[in-house]
Amino acid sequence: MSYYQHKTAGFNAPPPLNNQMRLYHVDMNPYGHRVMLILEAKKAKYEVYQLDPLHLPEWFREKNPRLKIPVLEIPTDQGDKYLFESVVICDYLDERFPRNPLHSKDPYVKAQDRLLIERFNELIKGSLECFDTNFAFGSEQIIQTLDVFEKELATRGTNYFGGNRPGMLDYMIWPWVERLYLLRCVNEQKFDEKRPIFPNFADWGDQMQLDEVVKKHSRSPAEYFDYYRNARAHSMGYYL
Amino acid sequence: MSYYQHKTAGFNAPPPLNNQMRLYHVDMNPYGHRVMLILEAKKAKYEVYQLDPLHLPEWFREKNPRLKIPVLEIPTDQGDKYLFESVVICDYLDERFPRNPLHSKDPYVKAQDRLLIERFNELIKGSLECFDTNFAFGSEQIIQTLDVFEKELATRGTNYFGGNRPGMLDYMIWPWVERLYLLRCVNEQKFDEKRPIFPNFADWGDQMQLDEVVKKHSRSPAEYFDYYRNARAHSMGYYL
Repeated sequence: MSYYQHKTAGFNAPPPLNNQMRLYHVDMNPYGHRVMLILEAKKAKYEVYQLDPLHLPEWFREKNPRLKIPVLEIPTDQGDKYLFESVVICDYLDERFPRNPLHSKDPYVKAQDRLLIERFNELIKGSLECFDTNFAFGSEQIIQTLDVFEKELATRGTNYFGGNRPGMLDYMIWPWVERLYLLRCVNEQKFDEKRPIFPNFADWGDQMQLDEVVKKHSRSPAEYFDYYRNARAHSMGYYL
Repeated sequence: MSYYQHKTAGFNAPPPLNNQMRLYHVDMNPYGHRVMLILEAKKAKYEVYQLDPLHLPEWFREKNPRLKIPVLEIPTDQGDKYLFESVVICDYLDERFPRNPLHSKDPYVKAQDRLLIERFNELIKGSLECFDTNFAFGSEQIIQTLDVFEKELATRGTNYFGGNRPGMLDYMIWPWVERLYLLRCVNEQKFDEKRPIFPNFADWGDQMQLDEVVKKHSRSPAEYFDYYRNARAHSMGYYL
């Protein structure tokens, strides 16, 4: 993995791809974090092109008029192509690189996992509410979603949602869970008091943190805390 | 396919499944229409349980607290299970019944198709706007979305989005396109004037209407026109 970094607006577009993919990413963006986890789990060759969301270059706007981030650029026989939407990108990667399959082979379990990934959006919305203004409402949404996932782990009776190793569902929800630990920096005691309410989920989180794929892209609670404390100042609240 | 029909609230739940699936469906609902098209394309065994959305029975609310419709009930070794969300249900059916695969084998094309299915939601929103109050805004959303699909057909250079026969993308968008023909009942001349703006898409529509799967579940423009004209009266506007 190599990093390009152009922070100036209007810079020229990066060169066409050779044999590796390119991820257009905004640093600290959890949706891009999802894609990096899957690229890592698949041991795919890729480079990261860092974008500054406040100064998106003109060539990027042209290639991507809906201004979605992250974007995966893929070399093909018909030139470089683009994919959007983290969940669609990650499912694409899982199909394109058959080693270490991340979805269940059982179509019903795979469908359930897709529904749970969608259900998790309510925790994402809850985080945004907390960050914005409505802490009481947002934290209630977070708690209710964690409860769904707590029960699901209990029902499955496995260490991970994917079984005895992390699968697609584990990685899709991880970026926001990793960020939840920043609450430890706000009030460690209060954070730890929540642990017994979600015993399976808390154990899951402990194990996810030891996963090699997760470790490769992890940031500390203190880093997230600093980042989000300043996020409003640089108008990036919507990237939580 | 057999039809149950219980229109009275509080009725007992239907019996457990034997060897076929059961679709909980609201008549004229386009999301359920999607699932019926895929069940048909797969020649799957199923029955339809008709629900009255204004009088959802208690047992249905219990099994389905988020009150999503349609729901597919599936017999499994661990008892009957439920799936929600038309797109997730249809992808499940495509994987579970490998005959007549509806998704492209090329992961990139499959990913593109998923993005286009999502993009089509703007036509669905546009239809709702038209139906609600904001006709000018809604019809603009519809036109813009049709333009995307018109160009996509031209780029692909095939009769159907799926190639030489309808695939998942064709069937996922069809229910709303079939309903668009009701505009012929409003103003036939104006409707026909639009045809040359979307020549590929118009041809595609003509061919879709001749597809055996589509024909099995089609309704006439007049039926849709009557239904939606009265829909507001029975508070079902949100089912367009």
